[in-house]
Amino acid sequence: MPVYKAPVEDTLFVLYDVLNMENYGNLPGFSDAPRDLVEAVLNEGAKLCEEVLQPLNVVGDTIGCHRNDDGSVTTPPGFKAAYEQYREGGWLALSADPDYGGQGLPVVLNAAIGEFLSSSNLAWAMYPGLTQGAMAALHVHANDEIKRTYLPKMASGVWTGTMNLTEPHCGTDLGLLRTKAVPQGDGSYKISGQKIFISAGEHDMSENIVHLVLARIEGAPAGTKGISLFVVPKFLPDADGNAGSRNPVSCGKIEEKMGIHGNSTCVMNYDEATGWLVGQENKGLPAMFVMMNEARLSVGLQGLSQSEVAYQNAVTYAKDRLQGRSLSGPKAPDKPADPIIVHPDVRRTLMTMRAVNEAGRALVLWTALQADVHHRSEDAAEKQKADDHMGLMTPVVKGVLTDLGFDNAVKAQQLYGGHGYINEWGMGQFVRDARITMIYEGANGIQALDLVGRKLGANGGRAVMSFFGEVGAFCSQNKDDAALAPFIGSLSKGLKDLQAATMWFMQNAMAKPDNAGAGSTPYMHLFGLVAMGYMWAKMAKAANLKLANGANGTEERMNAKLGVARFFFEQMMPETAAHLARITAGADSMMALPADAF
Amino acid sequence: MPVYKAPVEDTLFVLYDVLNMENYGNLPGFSDAPRDLVEAVLNEGAKLCEEVLQPLNVVGDTIGCHRNDDGSVTTPPGFKAAYEQYREGGWLALSADPDYGGQGLPVVLNAAIGEFLSSSNLAWAMYPGLTQGAMAALHVHANDEIKRTYLPKMASGVWTGTMNLTEPHCGTDLGLLRTKAVPQGDGSYKISGQKIFISAGEHDMSENIVHLVLARIEGAPAGTKGISLFVVPKFLPDADGNAGSRNPVSCGKIEEKMGIHGNSTCVMNYDEATGWLVGQENKGLPAMFVMMNEARLSVGLQGLSQSEVAYQNAVTYAKDRLQGRSLSGPKAPDKPADPIIVHPDVRRTLMTMRAVNEAGRALVLWTALQADVHHRSEDAAEKQKADDHMGLMTPVVKGVLTDLGFDNAVKAQQLYGGHGYINEWGMGQFVRDARITMIYEGANGIQALDLVGRKLGANGGRAVMSFFGEVGAFCSQNKDDAALAPFIGSLSKGLKDLQAATMWFMQNAMAKPDNAGAGSTPYMHLFGLVAMGYMWAKMAKAANLKLANGANGTEERMNAKLGVARFFFEQMMPETAAHLARITAGADSMMALPADAF
Repeated sequence: MPVYKAPVEDTLFVLYDVLNMENYGNLPGFSDAPRDLVEAVLNEGAKLCEEVLQPLNVVGDTIGCHRNDDGSVTTPPGFKAAYEQYREGGWLALSADPDYGGQGLPVVLNAAIGEFLSSSNLAWAMYPGLTQGAMAALHVHANDEIKRTYLPKMASGVWTGTMNLTEPHCGTDLGLLRTKAVPQGDGSYKISGQKIFISAGEHDMSENIVHLVLARIEGAPAGTKGISLFVVPKFLPDADGNAGSRNPVSCGKIEEKMGIHGNSTCVMNYDEATGWLVGQENKGLPAMFVMMNEARLSVGLQGLSQSEVAYQNAVTYAKDRLQGRSLSGPKAPDKPADPIIVHPDVRRTLMTMRAVNEAGRALVLWTALQADVHHRSEDAAEKQKADDHMGLMTPVVKGVLTDLGFDNAVKAQQLYGGHGYINEWGMGQFVRDARITMIYEGANGIQALDLVGRKLGANGGRAVMSFFGEVGAFCSQNKDDAALAPFIGSLSKGLKDLQAATMWFMQNAMAKPDNAGAGSTPYMHLFGLVAMGYMWAKMAKAANLKLANGANGTEERMNAKLGVARFFFEQMMPETAAHLARITAGADSMMALPADAF
Repeated sequence: MPVYKAPVEDTLFVLYDVLNMENYGNLPGFSDAPRDLVEAVLNEGAKLCEEVLQPLNVVGDTIGCHRNDDGSVTTPPGFKAAYEQYREGGWLALSADPDYGGQGLPVVLNAAIGEFLSSSNLAWAMYPGLTQGAMAALHVHANDEIKRTYLPKMASGVWTGTMNLTEPHCGTDLGLLRTKAVPQGDGSYKISGQKIFISAGEHDMSENIVHLVLARIEGAPAGTKGISLFVVPKFLPDADGNAGSRNPVSCGKIEEKMGIHGNSTCVMNYDEATGWLVGQENKGLPAMFVMMNEARLSVGLQGLSQSEVAYQNAVTYAKDRLQGRSLSGPKAPDKPADPIIVHPDVRRTLMTMRAVNEAGRALVLWTALQADVHHRSEDAAEKQKADDHMGLMTPVVKGVLTDLGFDNAVKAQQLYGGHGYINEWGMGQFVRDARITMIYEGANGIQALDLVGRKLGANGGRAVMSFFGEVGAFCSQNKDDAALAPFIGSLSKGLKDLQAATMWFMQNAMAKPDNAGAGSTPYMHLFGLVAMGYMWAKMAKAANLKLANGANGTEERMNAKLGVARFFFEQMMPETAAHLARITAGADSMMALPADAF
């Protein structure tokens, strides 16, 4: 059975030694979160994940969700009780707005807990995860009446949320959607249509389910300009604001899928269900994007989370499994063979996972901290810079961490040999569960297009120039630090490749947009390497500082940080040049064949 | 439901335009296989695969194998009838020795059919696949009595075969195995022990199952030097050579696993089962390696096969699915959106798959042809060169084509978005089935070590020098061909990187073997890129020649070949430099951390 231990110490290292979280005390909510409170919250969250959620992970995979004849859905044994415990702990409210029942603590803290939740039980964590996404969309776009009706119920976890975008004929291209909304003259609408792939669409864990639904108001323009966002609850709120009469929205089917069996992926049928407009008519897509950006960061974290738990189990196995002898002579001569962790190729596997996990964690937490700055700062320039960062980094976090998270789950499974392929050891579940993160909330090809087609050029390239400036300045400032020099050299080279690729797009994609599409996926990964490289350089600097100042019991961890940093720069960073070569080769080799030649 | 069409035309192009199969007419068996016969065999095999086996693929995945209370195993509905049809077609005998019931046709033809079989139904194809592997081992190592008893029954498909290596505590490190063999004084042995992960270990498709079992004769030396190979039939042959009394070897359990559900992966219990020695006492490992090398080539082909069928389905979907508009303006203005094949990133996905599939096919067929030369030529130098090639290329084919085959199945699934994740479309099965090919018959990390640790240095590097010489000569001969020049430039650069990496090992791995282990996986993939690049250059040359000589209706296919060749060299070959950088960075960053720091 798989094991999991939440990486509380590494999270604290990132928050305080790398991101200097104590410098943000001027932001609302941060002064309520001194380090001892943050540590307590992380440890409490870790406990819940390790003791309650992780043991249910295999249960969820094996038993899955069941749709009953009356259309109700039963979640796997233990899921509801665990949710009860989570709900009572107030976890959903952690970083929610205090005006609507939230605790107002930093979003970055919520992100840290989010990793632990997904590592321990991804399918389970999606239920509250979608609720938080729905809360974010309502918080920004709904009117106050809707907010007062829904947000406190969701912050307390009594009601959960979903997002309803996809229809059978449209996923990526929402302009094609057909679900319709008919105004009733009383401010409400009747919503009719079918939505598919609705995670947590129906279940038995909460008193009510709040569906956020994209639909087209009768007579609205075609395409994406005619889409509106609605809130459609499973039960209509009564006069006291409690779940009242049943709304005609129901689960028609649970999809049979490759993984995340513990989450109910539903076909949802809307038969003149009552809903209310969120935000303005025909402005549903931008409103939903608030939710999607929130969700995309979470999905990046989910990719990372599967890589982390898979890594931990691979390490355990690599230390236990005796097979063969070290190339440099027996390391456990008293045993029939050496543990496989002596083999360099096994080390390569473990180090690759770890290099991604630790840099990915830093990258997500850095980005989540920018969300806090964006939402809470009163300095307009600071807010804008934070927003720029988030917009730029969201597709990178989503696309790169889920691609690599999946790859790493596969690597961890590989380390088990045949035992990785049978269900008994549980490694296949990480692979199958991680797989969805590359697909949902915008498949990774869409993330790459978002980065290249939308984020790079936004506001005259302000966001990307700011990022290049920051990384470049870090390199300049630290290039004479002998302990950092090899890392800085590699990072500078990576940055140069990234800048050259960006310049190439500027010069070659305007006149020929296919050049942007053709290079988008390599560019996203090139960007991810530089962003992770920047995190590694900052972590190495922090580790050196800690070692110089008396590491206080963390010597081994700090030395390991430096070791993994070296691995990252030597083994992973060289890929930037290959990506640059791919990008600058352009679209011709991809577009030359007629479609019929495939 | 997935579709499949066997790539008969591309196979013929490789056999006749690239490998010039008609030049091998002097080898026994080749004169019996003129082009029209080869075409007929391929078309007949294609029909069986497309019409009989492919429709059973989802059935096998969904229903799987069932162990009954009496220890017998029922295969999925239709599997037995399909096997009957295959058996009656004489397919198992195709390239088997005519002295023992075989047809003696070239092995390369059997390999071509092998791809079709695995593409259409991997789990099913493993039953006859393992039989062919077992036949190969018996053919080389068994005495004539055993050969006469078993080979004709296996060639006719009336009996099937298995290989029994793994035990719960040992997979890679067979020196640890415990299954014991006690001589009975009559030439037979009593075999006792437990084997795990035995594919096709028990089933209802054949009259008898011939287990090849590694075991330790009482009193044999410890480690790999005390292992012998035995043939242990499920039913002991009677005086007429038919299946007689039941031997105490039985299936204790079928493993629950990630994929290949249609194949029965058994725990096999040997309780003083009667067996006979194959080859010499304590020389079981080299004998089993004959079977494993055969099997490893087949497994490389299996990886390729899943990539091919996944590609075909991805193409169908990419032409059908309407979503978004081309970056360069609408391509299907009469439809609500363009088919997604207009998008460059979708093209990148398809071209990547195709570039691997076509080069992989050529590489496998080239290697299988060397097997024919090795087995059938009477020219000692030619035989040795062919054997060198096979030894060198086997780990590359197995490791690289299965790694890439799996990656490609994932890419194909990705192209379907959410529809790829649900079972309905069948794309997940290709991913789950392909996954095993990276693991069994020696996990890919072991293939990489075999290449670097064993094959590179064998006979003073004779095999690798011969390969470098051949590729280098091809580059020199064709560098002034304007139509080939860009390809040759890229191939030469890749070859230079490969030679530099090889040189680096020579200079740095003798004194410090961990440097070989640390670089082994990147080296295997670097080798694979150069080998596939060589195939692409040869295919491009053949395509140009065909176009110049009047392509006779194949213009579109030949132009597509050139297009995919360009994609390979522009988009995939740049990776060689990154691999070289990884290799020459050495083992230090992997080995520096103490095991406890993981």
